[in-house]
This record gives sequence, C-alpha cells and structure tokens, in this order.
Amino acid sequence: MGHFKVNQKDIFFILKEQLQYGSLNALDRYQGLNEKTFDMLVAEAINFAKGVVDPLQEIGETYGVNYLYGKVSCPLEFRQAFKQYGQDGWIAAARDPEYGGQGFPNMMRIVINDMMYGACQAFNMAPSLTHGAAHLIETFGSPELKKRFVPKMFDGTWAGTMCLTEPDAGSNLAGLQTTAYPQGDHYKMKGTKIFISWGDHDLTENIIHLVIARIDGAPEGVKGISLFVVPKMRVDPHGAIEGSNDVLCGGVEDKLGLHSSPTCVLNFGGSDDCIGYLCGEANRGLAHMFQMMNAARINTGVSGMTLASTAYQNALEYAKARVQGRDIAGRKSGDVPIIDHPDVRRMLLWMKAMVDGMRSMIYTGAFWQDQALELPEGDQKQHFANLLDFMTPIIKAYCSDMGFRVCETAIQCLGGYGYCKEYPLEQYLRDAKIMSLYEGTNGIQSMDLMGRKMRINGGAPFKAYKTEIDKFCLENREHPLLGGQVTALAQTFARLTAVSEKMRDQMKSDPLQWASNTYPALTAFGEVTMTWRLLDMAIIAARTIEKGRKNSFYIGKILQATYFTDVTLPHTLATMDNALREGREVVEMPNGGF
Amino acid sequence: MGHFKVNQKDIFFILKEQLQYGSLNALDRYQGLNEKTFDMLVAEAINFAKGVVDPLQEIGETYGVNYLYGKVSCPLEFRQAFKQYGQDGWIAAARDPEYGGQGFPNMMRIVINDMMYGACQAFNMAPSLTHGAAHLIETFGSPELKKRFVPKMFDGTWAGTMCLTEPDAGSNLAGLQTTAYPQGDHYKMKGTKIFISWGDHDLTENIIHLVIARIDGAPEGVKGISLFVVPKMRVDPHGAIEGSNDVLCGGVEDKLGLHSSPTCVLNFGGSDDCIGYLCGEANRGLAHMFQMMNAARINTGVSGMTLASTAYQNALEYAKARVQGRDIAGRKSGDVPIIDHPDVRRMLLWMKAMVDGMRSMIYTGAFWQDQALELPEGDQKQHFANLLDFMTPIIKAYCSDMGFRVCETAIQCLGGYGYCKEYPLEQYLRDAKIMSLYEGTNGIQSMDLMGRKMRINGGAPFKAYKTEIDKFCLENREHPLLGGQVTALAQTFARLTAVSEKMRDQMKSDPLQWASNTYPALTAFGEVTMTWRLLDMAIIAARTIEKGRKNSFYIGKILQATYFTDVTLPHTLATMDNALREGREVVEMPNGGF
Repeated sequence: MGHFKVNQKDIFFILKEQLQYGSLNALDRYQGLNEKTFDMLVAEAINFAKGVVDPLQEIGETYGVNYLYGKVSCPLEFRQAFKQYGQDGWIAAARDPEYGGQGFPNMMRIVINDMMYGACQAFNMAPSLTHGAAHLIETFGSPELKKRFVPKMFDGTWAGTMCLTEPDAGSNLAGLQTTAYPQGDHYKMKGTKIFISWGDHDLTENIIHLVIARIDGAPEGVKGISLFVVPKMRVDPHGAIEGSNDVLCGGVEDKLGLHSSPTCVLNFGGSDDCIGYLCGEANRGLAHMFQMMNAARINTGVSGMTLASTAYQNALEYAKARVQGRDIAGRKSGDVPIIDHPDVRRMLLWMKAMVDGMRSMIYTGAFWQDQALELPEGDQKQHFANLLDFMTPIIKAYCSDMGFRVCETAIQCLGGYGYCKEYPLEQYLRDAKIMSLYEGTNGIQSMDLMGRKMRINGGAPFKAYKTEIDKFCLENREHPLLGGQVTALAQTFARLTAVSEKMRDQMKSDPLQWASNTYPALTAFGEVTMTWRLLDMAIIAARTIEKGRKNSFYIGKILQATYFTDVTLPHTLATMDNALREGREVVEMPNGGF
Repeated sequence: MGHFKVNQKDIFFILKEQLQYGSLNALDRYQGLNEKTFDMLVAEAINFAKGVVDPLQEIGETYGVNYLYGKVSCPLEFRQAFKQYGQDGWIAAARDPEYGGQGFPNMMRIVINDMMYGACQAFNMAPSLTHGAAHLIETFGSPELKKRFVPKMFDGTWAGTMCLTEPDAGSNLAGLQTTAYPQGDHYKMKGTKIFISWGDHDLTENIIHLVIARIDGAPEGVKGISLFVVPKMRVDPHGAIEGSNDVLCGGVEDKLGLHSSPTCVLNFGGSDDCIGYLCGEANRGLAHMFQMMNAARINTGVSGMTLASTAYQNALEYAKARVQGRDIAGRKSGDVPIIDHPDVRRMLLWMKAMVDGMRSMIYTGAFWQDQALELPEGDQKQHFANLLDFMTPIIKAYCSDMGFRVCETAIQCLGGYGYCKEYPLEQYLRDAKIMSLYEGTNGIQSMDLMGRKMRINGGAPFKAYKTEIDKFCLENREHPLLGGQVTALAQTFARLTAVSEKMRDQMKSDPLQWASNTYPALTAFGEVTMTWRLLDMAIIAARTIEKGRKNSFYIGKILQATYFTDVTLPHTLATMDNALREGREVVEMPNGGF
C-alpha cells in the first residue's frame, strides 16, 4: 500500500524548534490561534495526505486522463478526493473566513502543500491552482466578481486555472496574442492557450480560468496585458450555471510524468461566444498575475523538495530491509542490509541533508511571508518582503533541480529495482522533472535573481538576505562544535557577495557574459542557503544534546550539517570561480561550431 | 521523421585525426584492411542506424512487448530488423571469418554500437547480447559447442543472452543458487534468473542463454560458479531444432524506459527437463563471464554517451529553430532563435563538450583494446591491456551518469516541450537511466576502480594510465594556446595521484571510510580523462588552424576544451578535497539518525 512517506519528527523540528512557528500568533491576524492548533493542522494534513491523496498516485498513473471530443475526464477517485479536499477546508486553509477560508497563516498552506504534493503531485495541482486563481479574484476582483466566484472555489465546488502560455509566448509573455474585445460590462475573449495544467476536467461542474490577454488596441509588449476571469460555464449573478462559455479543450499533452494531471490546449472563443471579466486594472494584468506566479514558483520548489523527501524515505526503508553482500569491515558475519555499505550510506546521508535543508529553506521563506503580509507597515515588514522576494527564484530553481537529483539518487539506492514500476521511485523522478521547466524555466529564475533582485530598490532584496546570513555567522562563528563550518560559510558568502556585486555591474556592461553565468551563481546561492539552514538546525540540536538529550535524531542533525557543509562549500567556491572567469567561450562560440 | 541525429564530422575527427584508426592495419590481423574500408563501414553503420534502427525507437515505445503464457512477443518490425542486422553482418563485424565474422577490428564494433544504440537502445541490446554470448562460446566452448551455436548466432538466426542475476544475487554473485546436475555429457539445470535483458522474445526461433550456475556440490561463493550454454530450444548436433528445453519466461518487468526490451524472469528446469552444456572450465565460470561483462560495461558507457549525443543534437536543432525573446545585448532586432540566449548556449556548449569528450574517451579505450588483443606478447601488449582494465569502470560509470545528465540538460533547452512525448528527449532520459544501474551499479564500479584496479599487479592498471596522462602533459605543457589548461590538468592529476595512493592504503586500514569515498574519486578520474581527451582534440584542431584551415568546426574543438577544463577542474579539486577529508559522518551516522 501507500508509498508516501514522511518523517514527522523532521517536519516538527523545523516548525517548532527552528522556526518556533507558534510565534506567528503574535501577528494581529492570528491572535486567536496557537501552536497547538497549528500542530493539529499539520497532523491532520499528514493523515489526509496518506489516507485520501496517496492512493491517487497509483490510480492516476494507471488510468491517466481521457480526452474525447473537447472534454477531459479523470478517474472517479479524483473527483471524490477533490470534493473532500474542498469540503474539509484544505483549499482555503490560509484564506479569510469572509469567503469561506479557515484563517490559518500562509505558512500552513505551504506545509499542507508539502504533504499533499508529496502524496500525489499530479492531483494536488488541481486544488492548489484553484486556490491561486480564487485568491487572485479575492485580491484584485470587483466585489461582484468576488461574491460570484470565490466562495465556490474555496469550498471546491468549482476549480480554477492560470492561463499564461501561448504557442509563441512561453518564457516570453510579450508575444501574447489572446485578445479581449470590450462589450458592455464584459469582454469577448479570443485566443489559444497551451500547457494549461488542469485546463479541463470533470472534477467539478465549472472551471474558472484566470487568463492574461490584450484588450483590443492595448499597447504592445508586457505593458498591454490585462487579467480576466473566464469561466468554462457561464454563471448568473446568483452563481447558477447558465450554459457553455465557448472554452474548448483542443487536446492534452502526452508527457513524461504527471499522467493524471491534464495539460491542456484551451481555445477561447472559437465560436465567438466566450465572455470574460476584467480582473483588476486594465494593462496591469501581468503585475496582478505575479501574485499567483510567485506563489506558484514557491510551490514548484515545494514539489521538488517533497518528491525528494518521499523518494528519500522510500530509499531509506529499502536500504534497511534489503539484505545483500558482506560487511566490508567484517563487523558482522553473513550478509548485511545494504544500509551498512558505505557507498549506500553516502547517498542516504546526502539525500537526508538535501531534503532537510530544502524543507527548512522553504518553511523559512513561508515564515517570512507571513511577517511580510501581516506586520504593520514599516521597515520590518519591508525587510521580510525583500527576503521573500530574494528567496523565491532560489527556492524555485534550486529545489526543483536538486529535488530531481535526489529522486535520481534514491533510484540508485535500489539498484535495478529502482528502474521498475513495482517501486514508486521512477514515478517520482518523472513527476519531478517538470519542476525545472514550468513556472519560468530555471534559467529565467537565475536571471531574475542575478538581475532584478540585485538591482530593484538599490538591491534591497539582496541586502535583506545578506543581513540575515551575516547575522547568523557573526552570532555563531565561535560555536564550539560548529564554529569551523560557520566560518567557512561566512568566507564563502563574503566571496559570493563580491561575485554578486561584480555581476550586478556586468549586467549592464557585458550582458551576454553576465547571462552566461547567472545559473551557476543561482546554484551558489542555493548552496549557501542550504548550508545556513542546516547549520542553524545543527546548532539547535547541539543545544538540546548539551541539555543531556543525546539521541540519534539530534546527532543526525549535526552530522548532516557538517557533512553537507564540508562537502558542498568547496564546490560552491569552484562554481563562483567559474562565474568570474574571463573566458568567453559561451558567448564567442560560432553557431557552426556546435 | 527520424529522431536519431549524429554529427559525422565529430565522429571522423576522433577516428581519423585524433586516433588515426587506419593505423590499426599495422596489426597482423588487420593487414588486409585500410582506413578507407573503415570509413566505409562507419558510413554504412550510420545509414543502417538511420534507415533500419531509428524507426524502431518510436514503434517500440508505442507497442512495447507482450507477455502471455510464458512467452514474449515483439513488434514485427523488430523481427525484420534483427534478421537484416544479422544478415548484413553487423553482429559479427569484429569476429573472425571462421564462424561468419567480417574480421574488422574490435574498435569498429564500438563505433557500430555507438550508432545503433543511439538510434534505438532497446533494440540494439538484442544483437549486442547475441554477439557477447556467441563470442563467449567462441572463446571458451568446445569445438562441438562452437560449431553448433556460434555461426547461427553470428548471422542472427538465433539470439543470445547473459544470465547472471538472481533474486538474492544481484550485485553479490556469491549468493547464486542456480544449480547444474551432471548427467552424461551435459547437465540438468535448475534455477531462476531475473533481470534478463531480451531473456525471451520471438525475434528468432531459438535463444542461446549463457548461464552462470553452481555444479551440484561445488564450493561456496564465487569460486564454485561455472558457465553453461542453455538453449531455449534443444538443438541436435547438426543444428536442427528438436523441441522445448524447459526454459520458461515467468514474467517481464514494467520499467521506466526501454519499453521494447523485454526484461525477463527466466525459470530453468521448472519441469526438471532443462539441459545445459558446460562452457569452459568447471568453477571458472565467473572468470569466463568477465569477458562478456567487461564488454557489457564498456557498451553501457557507449549507450550513455550516444543517448547523450543524439539528445544534444536534437536540443541543438531545436535551439536553432525556435524563435523566442529578444537578444539581451540588442545585437539583432525582433525575436531571435533561443540559441542566441547565453544561458541556452551555456547548456549547449557543456553538452557538446561532454558528448565529444565521452566519445573520445570510449573510442580511445576501444583503440587500446585492439592493441591489447592483437599485439604480440610483450610489454606493449600488457600496457594496453592495463589501460583498458583501468578505463573500463570509468567508461561505465562516468559515461552512464553524465549521459543521463546530458539528457536532462537537453530537455531543459526545450522548456516545457522537453517534457512532452511529442519530442524524443524524454524517452532518451528514461532509457538512459538504466545505465548507472545494470552491469554492476556505479558504486560497484567505483570500488573496482579504487580497489582492484589500484592494487592488482602492483597497481599496473593505474600506472599505465598515469604514464599516458603524464606523457601528454609533458609534451604539451608549453603549448602556446592551451599550455595553461594542460598545466592545470597536470596539477590536478598530480593531486589525484596522491589521493589515489592514500586511498589505496586506506582500503586495508580503514575500509569503511575508503568505501564512502570511492564514488567521488571515480568522478575525479572521469573528469581528468575527459579533460585530457578534449585538450588532445583541441591541440590537433589548433594545428589544423595554424595550417590556415580556420573554420567554426576546429574553433569549436578549442573552445569546448578550454571551457570544459576551466569550468570542471576546480570542481575536480573540490571533489578530491572531499575524498581526503577526515570527517567520518557517513560511517558514524547512527541508523536511527537517518
């Protein structure tokens, strides 16, 4: 049965011991809540993920989705699970009660997604997109739009999507062709969108598409893009379904993974009968959409991390159970479990550190986001907003690439069995590969990090990040056990700061060379962030051990941190050497030389 | 149509300009041949791969294999292709004419496999295994066995397999249970083998299994293993089929990739009616089998490399054709092909260097093998045998892991389309993943390299390798253009030599710590070998340019070499730091800490 595996102790260590997430109730909005309520929600999320969502992983892989005559149908179990997911309040756990939310901190949404994506990535995209779309309407829509659409999306009666990509506008949204023609209080929509996740399905009777398009005659480029609410089925002001809105699914992609998540071509207004409602300001659509895109980018990092997490846990369980080969040091007689073989342990320890570090990185970002959202206006609020801004592309790109790498390593632990569908790992690997590609490729993320996030507001996002790392290093560089690693982090980060400053200037003076080095630089930031979070956990664990609570769990936190730091930072330095090298091969290579 | 893509100029540059493979006709066995004959064979192999094998990649993925009532059936096109493959002489191209071979150098078999695996990995395993099995009989079998089986395998009338793995004997063959009971001039076979590639199929009317098993009463462990020829259908001394030999397929694995290559459970003697013939000496079976296993390990490297090669070529073609986004430096107006974006170029240049370096590494190994096989007894012959011995685990492990990484990067170049089955890349990725797992996991390879290959014959394999690298560095360290890179290689290799010597001693004094570092050390050897081969090509290219033949092709050889060297060797140094570190986290981590 169930393949989804999670170590609850690891989760709660980050939430309670590292971040002390109960302290969020100091924020006005969460006054009525306390750490116990949060703990219960986490435990319930794990139960729901295991009981309701996990079985979908195999069902979805076996049956996939059916596309016929412009409609997509999904396994019945998906419909039932989506309904229960909405009714039990998981979609809107972090939203205000006004429209049916549960009023939990935003951070809890990330923890919930961690569990639900880990159990079935393909399924959880549906409620997660529904939340994002509804929250866009909640934030930017008119009172009328909000009332009509938001409550039914929050409770899972209807689903939602995000429609950006077009055949000639993938990473480059400036080329957008979908057009909205004004008509009374609404617009007539016309255009084709591709790669729309859960763009059509039969989980719900209606799907509310959040679509970016150009109002007829709007300026060229990204400054002429507006945001629209376009329901699949027309809805009267009281929320009753009136009939089709001329949104047809033109096909679904056949993909490497996520076989139960329909990736659709959507045709809006093929019969000139599709209406949409402007959401927010005209020509400000891309800025509005960024709320959902930023959340989606963080969720992509969550997905990469959590697939890695369950892959690691599955590999660990296998390594403990599978007996083969003698102990190389003769410590035991007879054949031993493969966890005793040092090369297997090497892979397990690396995966453990990766998973724990990525989870801490993401949860920390989520914790910052709650401060950014709920603190009163002022420097503090801005500081956390800057931190989250800076971390978003790192979380997205680093956790997606490394999540895939962990899935690959988990397969390696199983030998030939890792290649077989009898075990869940090959599916995790396939599902995880999308993460580096969608929501802005990782190359795009690296340009965002080393460009915009270094330059806006005088480089405020980077400065906020630097403040945190410097503070941590200053406070802990004399640590009796981990001071050496903290010092190595400080030295590496000092160098990374110099690299970043040089690259910030290079962006204008030599953009081609700059752009050939942004991805390596992002990797360096990912590794520094990982080291910081792992050392922070190790220091907390060391404190607990000092109090006499010495056990394997806390020892593991220390060993994973020293191992990761010592093994990784020399590579980080090498990566930075590369980012600063003078060689211009990437730029100067003649096309005919490839 | 056809997805298989190869740059012939790259292939011939390595064969003719770097290795001067025409010089193989100085060996007695190849006196009648010349470079022109070799060139023609390469060109024909490319044609055959494109015309006959490439279409199987998609057909096989669409239809897979069928397993019903103990029998496997394959698409008709596979049967036709296998027949033609045998009749056209591709199976036995490198074998003696005595049994129907074409008498080409062994090296040509590697080049042929490069093309055929690149076109369809799943298919080419069938003739490649047939060759390996037949060559085992040719080498170790009695005249009677040879006469009865070898010619019909070389011409593709019958197929062959290699049967090693059992449910409790995967990486550890000491646990082998399959038993052979003496009975007159043959044996009765009993046992179950798993993970047998092409273990059953309907491409041919008979399948000749090469099986390792224990003769009843043989010593325990690997010293009691013998090699047997076990046909699926019994054959009379004249080669006529007599009837079933009680070899039944108990099922096929459902796998991540290679969907048209049946991976079988085989039951030998389930009805006590399976006979086998001893091949070679009793209890020397594992040593005999190593001939086929070593070849299979090199072929695994070939597969990883060639899947990477065609993946790269597909990504390159896409990047030239796909127009999206503006030029970041404003060199052109309007949207540009994505090959103009530096981050895409970075990925392309890295992939190009990886593919060219891996191919050169493998072809160089194959060139050495011909010297090792055909030179008269003496130091020279032994030197080349040592070189090949040392390179085998590097070729197997490095090219399989990096081949997978190149496939991943090629997908990244395509963005979301890379995830779709509409393009061939996701299949290359899935097919490539097996390479790190079968024919001995890459962890096993690393222990072979840093253990046996460092210690046997006083470390002769390593010393042979060191002789070659030192010679290259000494000859070229003053090179006007590439001297800096050559010096960096020399320095890195000097350090790697020190690491290797320390680890050689550590193997006995501290085997646990040693075994936790063998895989990183293998990676370092892979990177040093890559750098060496790429710089060697660059120096040849520089010589050609000096003669006034300056063109993009030769410039590309230089740029890929300096880029790879400068970007990679700092990481190689970091990896070596790791291999020497004192930290013992991998060894000391308590199991409860994972």
